[in-house]
Formats: sequence, structure tokens, C-alpha cells
Amino acid sequence: MKTKVAIIGATGYTGLELVKILVRHKQVQLSHLAVRRTPMPKYSEIFPELTKICDMQCSEIDADKICKDSDVIFFALPHKVTMTLMPSFLNKGKKIIDLSSDYRLKDVSTYEKAYGQKHEDATHVKDFVYGLPEVTKENIKKSQNIANPGCFPTSILLALYPLLKNKCINLEGIIADSKTGVSGGGREPKPDFHFPECNESVKPYRVGVHQHEPEIEQELGNMAGKNVDIIFVPHLISMTRGILSTVYADLKKEYSWQEIEALYKACYSNEPFVRLKAEGQYPQTKDTTNTNFCDIGFKIIGKKIVVMSAIDNLVKGASGQAVQNMNIMCGFDEREGIL
Amino acid sequence: MKTKVAIIGATGYTGLELVKILVRHKQVQLSHLAVRRTPMPKYSEIFPELTKICDMQCSEIDADKICKDSDVIFFALPHKVTMTLMPSFLNKGKKIIDLSSDYRLKDVSTYEKAYGQKHEDATHVKDFVYGLPEVTKENIKKSQNIANPGCFPTSILLALYPLLKNKCINLEGIIADSKTGVSGGGREPKPDFHFPECNESVKPYRVGVHQHEPEIEQELGNMAGKNVDIIFVPHLISMTRGILSTVYADLKKEYSWQEIEALYKACYSNEPFVRLKAEGQYPQTKDTTNTNFCDIGFKIIGKKIVVMSAIDNLVKGASGQAVQNMNIMCGFDEREGIL
Amino acid sequence: MKTKVAIIGATGYTGLELVKILVRHKQVQLSHLAVRRTPMPKYSEIFPELTKICDMQCSEIDADKICKDSDVIFFALPHKVTMTLMPSFLNKGKKIIDLSSDYRLKDVSTYEKAYGQKHEDATHVKDFVYGLPEVTKENIKKSQNIANPGCFPTSILLALYPLLKNKCINLEGIIADSKTGVSGGGREPKPDFHFPECNESVKPYRVGVHQHEPEIEQELGNMAGKNVDIIFVPHLISMTRGILSTVYADLKKEYSWQEIEALYKACYSNEPFVRLKAEGQYPQTKDTTNTNFCDIGFKIIGKKIVVMSAIDNLVKGASGQAVQNMNIMCGFDEREGIL
Amino acid sequence: MKTKVAIIGATGYTGLELVKILVRHKQVQLSHLAVRRTPMPKYSEIFPELTKICDMQCSEIDADKICKDSDVIFFALPHKVTMTLMPSFLNKGKKIIDLSSDYRLKDVSTYEKAYGQKHEDATHVKDFVYGLPEVTKENIKKSQNIANPGCFPTSILLALYPLLKNKCINLEGIIADSKTGVSGGGREPKPDFHFPECNESVKPYRVGVHQHEPEIEQELGNMAGKNVDIIFVPHLISMTRGILSTVYADLKKEYSWQEIEALYKACYSNEPFVRLKAEGQYPQTKDTTNTNFCDIGFKIIGKKIVVMSAIDNLVKGASGQAVQNMNIMCGFDEREGIL
Repeated sequence: MKTKVAIIGATGYTGLELVKILVRHKQVQLSHLAVRRTPMPKYSEIFPELTKICDMQCSEIDADKICKDSDVIFFALPHKVTMTLMPSFLNKGKKIIDLSSDYRLKDVSTYEKAYGQKHEDATHVKDFVYGLPEVTKENIKKSQNIANPGCFPTSILLALYPLLKNKCINLEGIIADSKTGVSGGGREPKPDFHFPECNESVKPYRVGVHQHEPEIEQELGNMAGKNVDIIFVPHLISMTRGILSTVYADLKKEYSWQEIEALYKACYSNEPFVRLKAEGQYPQTKDTTNTNFCDIGFKIIGKKIVVMSAIDNLVKGASGQAVQNMNIMCGFDEREGIL
Repeated sequence: MKTKVAIIGATGYTGLELVKILVRHKQVQLSHLAVRRTPMPKYSEIFPELTKICDMQCSEIDADKICKDSDVIFFALPHKVTMTLMPSFLNKGKKIIDLSSDYRLKDVSTYEKAYGQKHEDATHVKDFVYGLPEVTKENIKKSQNIANPGCFPTSILLALYPLLKNKCINLEGIIADSKTGVSGGGREPKPDFHFPECNESVKPYRVGVHQHEPEIEQELGNMAGKNVDIIFVPHLISMTRGILSTVYADLKKEYSWQEIEALYKACYSNEPFVRLKAEGQYPQTKDTTNTNFCDIGFKIIGKKIVVMSAIDNLVKGASGQAVQNMNIMCGFDEREGIL
Repeated sequence: MKTKVAIIGATGYTGLELVKILVRHKQVQLSHLAVRRTPMPKYSEIFPELTKICDMQCSEIDADKICKDSDVIFFALPHKVTMTLMPSFLNKGKKIIDLSSDYRLKDVSTYEKAYGQKHEDATHVKDFVYGLPEVTKENIKKSQNIANPGCFPTSILLALYPLLKNKCINLEGIIADSKTGVSGGGREPKPDFHFPECNESVKPYRVGVHQHEPEIEQELGNMAGKNVDIIFVPHLISMTRGILSTVYADLKKEYSWQEIEALYKACYSNEPFVRLKAEGQYPQTKDTTNTNFCDIGFKIIGKKIVVMSAIDNLVKGASGQAVQNMNIMCGFDEREGIL
Repeated sequence: MKTKVAIIGATGYTGLELVKILVRHKQVQLSHLAVRRTPMPKYSEIFPELTKICDMQCSEIDADKICKDSDVIFFALPHKVTMTLMPSFLNKGKKIIDLSSDYRLKDVSTYEKAYGQKHEDATHVKDFVYGLPEVTKENIKKSQNIANPGCFPTSILLALYPLLKNKCINLEGIIADSKTGVSGGGREPKPDFHFPECNESVKPYRVGVHQHEPEIEQELGNMAGKNVDIIFVPHLISMTRGILSTVYADLKKEYSWQEIEALYKACYSNEPFVRLKAEGQYPQTKDTTNTNFCDIGFKIIGKKIVVMSAIDNLVKGASGQAVQNMNIMCGFDEREGIL
């Protein structure tokens, strides 16, 4: 019998991406596509591209009904909204995977500073496991609730994990220069994402104050066992999908390319969704578009190492990774539906 | 002494384009950049790209003050808004050039049907000359008030003018298939113009019901001396600027390419902003980007003629043509500021 | 046991798309990816995006070996090259699906004129069935060799089929104005497809002389039972994938939208890959990107009908349709691997 | 009387940009557009966009004739080719501005390593002044021959100049992460610049081995009076024009934003083509497209400073800066033709 899966907040880009993946997933069936709309549309009326693929009727966000009908519940709502709704769904024996940022930061005051608002469900934050499979897979297997990582954090954490785990780099002075496609800004029209404004341009934004920075630092800190500060500068570029992060760090001693490669291989050779580039080759986002892969390449220049990672922000950076987490939690093949 | 020029509604894309042109125009100086904002910004605060080019303080839309300080007044406001403000500016000895559609359609009921609203200044419509210089230059010279053509109409009318003037084509069955960049939709963010929605896509819209269709038919009718019906299908494509119109018509008899070329040359050889392509060559919008040119090419296939025209929708399709009209009205070199 | 499938000429965009589809197809396994390279690479060395998806070793184009190891053989080579290689593969009991244009035109002199060269395998042309499943499915089922349709023809033929089948339109004066993404030009760098040349631009090309025109006319003629001439104007637009065709025809009499809709439904309701838009709605290429769908909408304007169809040129316009043909020939579910 | 100006190698993107600027420059007239073509075309036959703007006949690269007819000679040829032709033009009393990289690097062995070839005109390298006007204006005024800076170097040098001049930053560990549009790769079609390959993607390339790195280090060294090593990582993004460089350096002590701003103002307030962003605002390439501006913003994060600069790679990064150099050399208004 198929696992029943609900999506709360199915009208954004991550919701759409979840639906696209889940309708092809062999071990699940959709139970609810819950949205805040009146009157209630068919899903393909919101997204005509899914006509004949998902013509299911949407339903309202009714916690009791959704919990009754579902084994796994994905939250694809904006932050803030998520934490007001979440408590009604917790502790009912359902597996929860939250794509918002509301349960990622374990220190509530850090959350409140980063997002500029009070956390309204602070008591439950500790009940969520940060779901970056290549790093925290054993915890994911045992967890009931997953805080699915942000898109920038995914790209940066996977770039640095083998270096921090093996204590190869200084914990100070790490720089992450990220380039993201416009879909990362969500589906709501805004001046910055108006086609004539962002087409044929590149710009940095929220330099040093992006809300993903504390999330990155928290998880880097977990990898290092110590506090890590990074400089994070995101850039908006004129493409729809993809993130390329170029990460700069200081090696503690001299390493050959092959020595570092060995560390990355030790971490990722058995991981289905990380691909390492050969020496002198570097990732490009296009190779990961519409896939759950994270492609990683690196270059050593004196005592600096430059690590470059590419993902699709909506797949490995959001919905694909969410399904990967579900696969791990439910004991499915980790690749099911996303390879 | 320089001619003093005001722009009413300087915060849209056509207003911006006007400013870019006028600051380099040798015979004018800006008197007012009138906007609806509080507090009143410097123009370069709205458009940082104009820092060190136009740091002028904006001013409010005060008809008396603007008329007192200006010789020429450009209206770059949306339709509807324009006709409520216009009466206060008329008949004060100022030259008016209106980039909106409010005074283009001479039949008010046609306007009201096309734009779905009552015309609130119907009495003044007759006081505006339709300002398509290559067709109506003599009228423009003598006029006080200009209704500046729409972008689609400009591209289609210039494509067909020599054929209609010389009665080469049937007046029925003319088809105009136009492709426009996204800036034609204006500066306000909307779902259709959200980058991830219109990037990497092409779609037809308002098929057979676009508000520019009556304008095209009115002016084609003036050229032909008879009623002309067209089929007009605009398409939105993933680029910022440019319109390519591909126009299909039935020739009344067989013509050689050279015979038709001679008719286009007779109309356009002395026109500084129309360029004719050689046989077998066709226009592309890129060649006209940021210019006031309209490039035209054609192909005869049996008794059909296919005429293709390319313009920059914000220049020849709006602000460049408005300045061309000013140049003609004021007796300046027609090319000043726009070549 | 899985059906063994070879691809001859796997290094172009259609070859790549075939591989992407076939590696996920449940009833086939790849036998050969035959290329003209020395030394012979792994497929993922040519296309790093397929690392961990298809790391198979490529092989040379050895007819005997490929026929011995394969049940189905896809040709994804350029035209001209195809017809010199094809004879060695025919009549060996293998199912052949040719994505080139070499076996589509049944009149060899038409081919020779359109492609500007002698046909070097004229005797076998008649042995290929034109494989447009929504029109010729019964023939495909019985055929051994398929000439897979071109991308423009697919979009235009599906737009017009219900109208011609039901004799609703005049056979003269049909116009197809098509807009294509750049991948339609193939993988070889050329000036027209150099990013700075085609980005942010639109242009018509090969107006009235495109090599796909005779193919379109041949198949429209088959639908109509009579000779059909069309005016075909392709345009290159600045996107990677997708074709939108806007087709104009004269209705023989007045029809309501619902009457025409009924005819389209009769043809396509049971077809898994054609989707009809509701009244007032029109297709956009983005909805079909990376899918095998053809989305169709239409508008009646007096006695003209405007039919708009959208496909992904590399999927329904090439490799997806090729797999659809294989599915039909082999008795698989028609949707396998492509839905 | 107008200054006579020749362009050697007018068929590339920088040549085209030079022509576009020079035809509007009030104090010069074109004497030769020298190209390597047979038969010799009109310039607008190579670039139809310049029809009616520059229909001048091209001429061959005849040093005697060009020198006889010209006061200023721009070289817009690729490197390697330039140094074989240059000697015939030197020491004839003509002002030379070379847009290639052949005379930028003062250490010939560094050149030979960076460009992988012997320098064939080593004796003349010392006769060229590096022409970055905001830094070396006094030398430019007195020079006869200018080595016009590269596009990446321009963006990075202007970002760092006030910091190095004032000894605010450590000379080690400087990182420049640059994002460039595709036109930087030149006009010749190549796989990396094929539209479907670079559209909708971002990738790093030549990481740590880009040929512009020694040029950047040479000039940073001149600013600092000491050796400077940088990490330079260029990225190709899917747009036609523009470079954004994000530069990271370590401040020697704590500075307020206002203190650093004062240093930038001291360097650039009188410079017509550098614009400083207010605190919390950052440059975007779109604001500099088709202009000679360099927009600069910065952020201090602890002891790191992040400086972001945006230019149009073909204008301030090449041809606009070349004209700026000519204006300075010839005693024209520095802004003539480029503001």
C-alpha cells in the first residue's frame, strides 16, 4: 500500500516542485494539496503545466483531516505562517518535513534576530532534525520531524563538509560568494524580480545580512564542533533556476589536490546525489537543473582552497531534498522519485 | 535659448527613456520631472542608473507651474489617468505630446469599448494629431497636440504603409503576428512579467482583443481611405526590449521584389529612421535596440507578401518617436537626440 | 527481459535527450551509444550532467555489432549522414526510428530541392512511416521503420489536423508563424546561435524557404486528401527550448468555439500528449518544457481561425516523440518514460 | 578641424563599440576602419545595425596609409596578432591606444607565461602606459602609447584603489570573485558561448589561472608599492554584457563605513565615471550597461571589507575607456562621446 502524502501550501514554486516529483514517486500517493484559496481549484488550474499530470482538487488546510488522511506531511509555506500552523500537526504520529526556515535555527533568539520577528512556536524547535542527508542521515532516519535546509545553506554546507569534518581549514575568514537564479525569490511578483529589472543584470543583495547566514553558521559549527563565522554574499543573476556557491577558505597546511579529493570521496562516494568534478573541472548550474544533484569541484591556490558547488535551488535546494529526506525517513530507496 | 521641456509621469519605463534622450538633446533643457510621490525624490533616487546624469529634483504635477515653466510637455502617464489631467494643460500655448492611448482613437465609442471605460475628456480628442512622422509629418508640423502612437501600431503601420498607399494589397485578411519584449508591459510587477514566469517562454495573449487593434485599424483605414480589418496576435517573449511584427497580406496582383522595393523606397528613402533590408535579408530586433530605427524587410510568396518590421518598443515605439515628434513640431533637426 | 536499444549519433541535443529519457524507461536498456569519436569516451564525459546517470562507454558505428545487440535503433544523426549509413541497418529485423529528415519526404525530388543535395538512398524512402502518433498511430503500430517528424512540422500538423480532417478550412492561404528556441539549431556553435548574437533578440529566418515546409505540406496534404500550400515563417527567439506555432486559416463557414472544440476533442481526447486549452486561454511553451505534451488553443475571429500550439522542440518535437513511436511499435504503454 | 581616428581590427565587439562611440564624438572623424577581409565590405554590411550610422568603406591594414591619414590609432585586434603589427605603427608621431593585452604586462616573462607564447615585440612594451584614467591620469596625459586595461582588471582595480592607496588592507588574501557576461568571450562562436550551453547557467572558469590575473597583480602592486597576490575566480553568467566583481579583503584595523567612504570620495569625487553607492546599497551591472560608468559599493563585516563594482565590459571595460584615454591624451573633455 502506498504511503499517503500531503502538501500544505502547494501554490508556491517549492510546492509545485514537490507535486511534480511526488506524482512520479512509486511508493506514495497524494492525499491533500492544501491551499488557502476560495473557491477551491483543481491543482492544474493553478498550474496549467500539470494538466493531465495532477488534476487533483485542492483542499483547505484542515489539520485534523490532513492528519487523518496522511502518513507524511510536507510544509511548503512561507516562514512565519508555518509556525502558527505547525503545532496542530505535531505529535500525531505523522512524519513532518518543513521546507520553511521556522524550525531550522536551534537558538530562538538567533531566529528572531535573523527574521525580525518573535518565534511563536519556540518549544517545538528542538523536535526538528536539520535534514541534510549527506551530513545528518543517521539522525534523519530516526526523526519524526525534519527542518529541510535552505537553498544557499545546502550548497555551502556540502561544499565545506569534508574540509570541516577533517579539520583542514581555519574556522575564520571563510567566504561564501553565491549566485542564485530568480526562482529563489518565490512566486510572488516583486520589483526586484520583475523581468525587465533582473534580466541581463547581476547584483549582490543583503550583503552580510542575509537570513540564511545564521543557518549556515549553525551547521558549519556543528560540523566543526566550534563556532564558525562566515562572510556570505548572495547575488541575483538573470536565470530562473540554480545556485552556484564559490567558497573560499584557508587551509591549515599544504595539501595536494589528491589529498583533498580523498577526503571528499570519503564523505560522498556513497552518496547518490553528490558528484565530484575531476581536477581542473568545475561545476555549472545547468548540469544540475531539474535534478537533485550537488556538483562539487575545487582548486587549491597556495594556502587557499576554492570550493565550488552547484545545485538546482528548487530541487536539491528545496523539494528534491525534502523528498530525499522522506525517502530516508520512510525506508524507501533514497533515490526514488528524484533520480 | 533652450526649449524648456517637462515630463508628466516620469517614473515609468517610457518616462525614463524620455529623460535619457532629453538630457543629451542639444536644444532642450528639462523644466519638470513631475511625479506622484511623497516625499519628492531626486530623479536618480528613483533610477540609480541616472546618477551623475540626471540628479534633478522631481516635482509635483502642478499644471500652472509646469505650463509656466515649459514650452513642451510630454505625458508619460498610464491611460485613464492621462485624460483626467490633460484638460488643465491644453490651450495654454504649450506643445503637448501624449504617450498614452487616451487621445489616439478618434471615435470615442471605439475607445470606450477597447479600454473598457468611459472617456472623460472626449471633447479634446479631435485636437490631437496622430504622430507617426513617416506618415503624418505635415500634420505634425502644424499641430499643437500629438497623440504618440502605440508600440505595436508603430511597427505594423510602418510595415504596411507603402502597400496601402499604393493600393497593392487586399484590405481583408491582413494578419499581424507580433512578438514583444517584456518592458512593453510596464514597470509595475505583475505575475505575467515575473522573471520565472516569462523567462524561457513565449505565449500569445489577448488574441484578437488587444486594445491596440482599433488603433491599428483606424490608421490603416486612413492610409487606405477605406475600412480595414486586421487579425492581430501579440506574443510575449523572453527579452526585455523590442518588437518584431510579421505582417501577412494578399497582393492584388503579381509584383516582383524590386517593384515593391521601389514603393518602400519612395516612402522611406528620405526618412532618417526607417531602414530597408536587401532581398533575402530580414530585420532582427537587436539591430534596433536603444535606437529610434524601424528596420523593414519583406518577402513575396506567390500572391502573399510577408513584411517584417523591428523596433525598440521603448524608443521608436514610444519615447524616441515622441522626441522625433517634438523635433518636427519645434523645427529642430528631426534626428536630434535620437540618432 | 528488457528491449535492447541503440542510439546512433548520441552527441547532439536530440541524442542527449533520448538518453535522458531511455535511462528512465522501464522496459528498455541501452545497448549502444554509437558516436564518431576517437578515443571512445564514456557518455558522461561528453555530457557531464549525466554523470552517475549514464556513465556507459560509447562505441563506434558498427552496423553488424549494433544490429546484433539491439532490438530498436534510433538514428540521431544529421541529415545527409543518415542516408549513407542507413542501408546497412535496414532489413535486419530491427525497428528503426530515424530522427533526421532523410526519410520523411516521400517525393525524392522534393527532398533534393529542399535539402540541396542528391538523395543517396532513394529506394528505401518508401519503407519509412511518418511517425506522428496522434495522426498515424495505426501505421506506426505496423511499421518497421519510422521517419520521426521534424519539430516545426509536429507543432503545425497537430494544430491543423482536426480542421483538415473535418474539412473546416480552405486549403489555400494557411499561414504558420513559428517561434523557436535556439536548441533547434543544434549543438554546433554558429554565429547565429552565439549567445551575444541571439540573446535579447528575435528574428525571422529562411522565410518561405525553410526545409521543413515541404514536410509540412506533404503531411497536410495527406490529412486533406488534396494539395495544400502554406506560408511558413520561422522565427528564432532568445530561449533555449520550445516552439510556439501560431497558425492562421480561413474557415469555410461560421463555427462556434464549441463546435470547433468538439472536433479537437474527437481527435485528441484519448491522446495522452495533447492538451486542449479552454476558451480564452492559450498555450505557452514553458508549460511544455521537458515534457512530451503539445498544448493547443484556438480563437475564432470572424471567418479566420487562429490555432496556437506549444511543444518542447527536443521532446515532442524530436526525442520524446521518437520514444512515443517506439512505445507504440513495441506495444509498450504509449506514455512509458515520457510522462 | 577634427582629429582623425583609425581603428585597426574593427570587426570584433570592441571594434564595434568603438565605432558606435566615435561616430557620435564631436571632435573626431573616422579615417580608417581597417579589417582583414576580402572583398572589402562597407562597415554596415558587417554590422547591419550600423546602417545609416556608419556606412563607411572598410580598408586594409596598411600601416603607411593609416598613419598618413590618422592622428589617433586604436588597435582592437586579438592579442598575439597585435604585437606582430604594432611596430610598423610606433614612433610615427601617432597616438596609439591598444585594447589588446600585448603591451599591458611590463614583465615580458610574466606575459609569456600568462599567454603561453613568446612576446614578439618585447622592446616596445616599456613605451606603453597602462591607461586606467582614475589611477594613472597624469601619465596618460603625457603618453604617446596606451595599453588599455582589461575588463576584469578595470573592475577590480577601481574597487581596490582607495584601499591600497591608503594602506587600509592587508596585501595577502585578497579575493576577487567576478561575474561576466558572455560578450567578454568575443565574437567568434565557441562551444562555451553557444546559446543553449551558457543560457540559464553560471559557471566558474580558469580558476586561479586566468590570463588577467598577472595584470591585476601588477597594477595592484603599483598601487601598494609592494607585491600583491590575489585569488581571482571569474564566472560566466547568462547575460550579454556587464561585469560585477565582488572583492574581499582584510582591513588592517577597524574602520567605520564613513571613514572608508571618505577615502573613496577623495579618490573618485572628481572622476566623471565612478559612482559611489550609499551605505546599504550595492551596484548592479544593469545600471552601467551601455555606459562608461563604474559603480562601486562596499560593506564592512568585522575586519573584512567587501567591495562590489559594476561595469559594462565592452564600454568601461574596453572601448569606452579607450575613448576616455584618447580624450585625456588629446586634451578633449574627458566625457566627450561617452556620457
